[in-house]
Amino acid sequence: MRDVCVVGLGLIGGSVLRAAAKAERQVWGAARSEEDVAAARAEGFDATTSLPEALSRAAERDAIVVIAVPLTAVESVLSDVAEHAPRVLLTDVVSVKQPVQEIVRRAVPEARFVGGHPMAGTAESGWSAGRADLFDGAAWALCLAHGTELAWWAEIAHLALELGAQVVPVTPELHDAAVARISHLPHVLAAVLAAVGAEAGPLTLSLAAGSFTDGTRVAGTRVDLVRAMTEGNRAALLPALDAALGMLGAARGSLASTGSLAATIEAGHEARRALAALRAAASTSVRIDLRAPDAAEALLALGEQGGRITEVEGGAAIGRVPGPSEQ
Amino acid sequence: MRDVCVVGLGLIGGSVLRAAAKAERQVWGAARSEEDVAAARAEGFDATTSLPEALSRAAERDAIVVIAVPLTAVESVLSDVAEHAPRVLLTDVVSVKQPVQEIVRRAVPEARFVGGHPMAGTAESGWSAGRADLFDGAAWALCLAHGTELAWWAEIAHLALELGAQVVPVTPELHDAAVARISHLPHVLAAVLAAVGAEAGPLTLSLAAGSFTDGTRVAGTRVDLVRAMTEGNRAALLPALDAALGMLGAARGSLASTGSLAATIEAGHEARRALAALRAAASTSVRIDLRAPDAAEALLALGEQGGRITEVEGGAAIGRVPGPSEQ
Repeated sequence: MRDVCVVGLGLIGGSVLRAAAKAERQVWGAARSEEDVAAARAEGFDATTSLPEALSRAAERDAIVVIAVPLTAVESVLSDVAEHAPRVLLTDVVSVKQPVQEIVRRAVPEARFVGGHPMAGTAESGWSAGRADLFDGAAWALCLAHGTELAWWAEIAHLALELGAQVVPVTPELHDAAVARISHLPHVLAAVLAAVGAEAGPLTLSLAAGSFTDGTRVAGTRVDLVRAMTEGNRAALLPALDAALGMLGAARGSLASTGSLAATIEAGHEARRALAALRAAASTSVRIDLRAPDAAEALLALGEQGGRITEVEGGAAIGRVPGPSEQ
Repeated sequence: MRDVCVVGLGLIGGSVLRAAAKAERQVWGAARSEEDVAAARAEGFDATTSLPEALSRAAERDAIVVIAVPLTAVESVLSDVAEHAPRVLLTDVVSVKQPVQEIVRRAVPEARFVGGHPMAGTAESGWSAGRADLFDGAAWALCLAHGTELAWWAEIAHLALELGAQVVPVTPELHDAAVARISHLPHVLAAVLAAVGAEAGPLTLSLAAGSFTDGTRVAGTRVDLVRAMTEGNRAALLPALDAALGMLGAARGSLASTGSLAATIEAGHEARRALAALRAAASTSVRIDLRAPDAAEALLALGEQGGRITEVEGGAAIGRVPGPSEQ
């Protein structure tokens, strides 16, 4: 088992550090925030404010380096990687994948890179919000891009599984389109809903209950983090916003002209049912030989069907895809 | 203490029945659903499928009648009220207030009516989803309309407080405008978000985590209930939809042209902070003499400031308004 070096000790990086330690990996962390480093050390973890030191150690031990900083800080961290660990086995947990892939290709072309994104988080941030069990049962998107070697992918998948997650093989493009709809659009809609409610004053907020509280929860996330992830996925977020605007405009038009919201409410109900059905679905076990020539295609097909990899062992990835189902 | 007759034994009516029994009121229920009535009886409650029987008993004992059916069924229930208990002390828990007020005026003009709306609920529905503690700490909007006598209002407020809620005095107009923003718009946005996510297929839903799950939760509510409340509040919902469309369109335009979502994300964050601040705010105790000539105005002013009534006793309403505060 390779050692692990985590760069960035916020919610996600701090949780990776804790979960990797719990999985008995040798793990150390680095962050620019003296506060996060001091907090990690106070809890007995190996952490430093010196990125060069942490990265040199990673190069020396051929460790996995996990980049866990916001998109806006990736370029700067990668210039340190290029200097101190240019050929390292590298992954990241940033919420957009095409932009990171491009920066990596430019900044550390010789790194063995596999982009990743654990679908876990809270409205909280920083070291103190992290937990060793943050990834338990969560999906961990892991990219197969042009040039990704399956041996690297399998090693990072193994780490993600050890941290408690289930791995979803995906291309950077499909990942970014998906998170635009299920992560970035929810943040924008939560902001809009919160603002429309609050602009009506205290009586309105005083009457707010479950539907408003749930619908606006992620609007409490730190502004810089939300901006980094939404603005960083601009190309994929624009069509998702257009889809939402189109559907909301159609709802408005239908309510004004006919008094009916049937199409909107039914589509939403059916979609929520599909989500519940996917989560509860019977599933079929799948075994993919990672040495087979079509292994990458098989992994991506599994991801596109809503499947997940739950084990990587002996040169094979074992997982489940939804179905057979009565839907 | 007056007896209570609850018409409709779904989530809200069933919870009123349970909570009123717990508060040691004499209470009985009536519903058209044989299933709900059988379930209520099986748990030891006094329930019947005969509305005329339940309402005649209410007239005889001068009980409070609580209408707890969807808006679309109100007219039909009120024709029974007009026949069997035309001058009863009447309230309702329907999610829109102007339409109910108008139907009551037309159908049972002699009833002593005070419209109400407890801000509590779940995505579940039916008798089995109800709970005696559903209203604990919840806001219960209670209308002061033209012609509402404060003595009636105080009696219904007393009942709502006994059920565990806090009472928000409000006009039907302000209520409907407020719930359009904090209840009906969240349902429409949840439906839009769910549909935009699901139309992208199983990979997208497989990656969905907290922000999508929370943002779409209320899309799981029964379609007929959501349609009844949103379509029933059409006049107030249209401007709320326009506000959301305007803000979402501005976000889209800004992202496309400048790459920034700053204005949207900041407004949403500030609004969510305002919600948290209102809930955590220091508050000042207020006592309103219900026999004073300006009592109704004082109650409505308290509601508009985000205040709540927590006690009705000895001809006075006692409550709290937010502030002083450091905001």
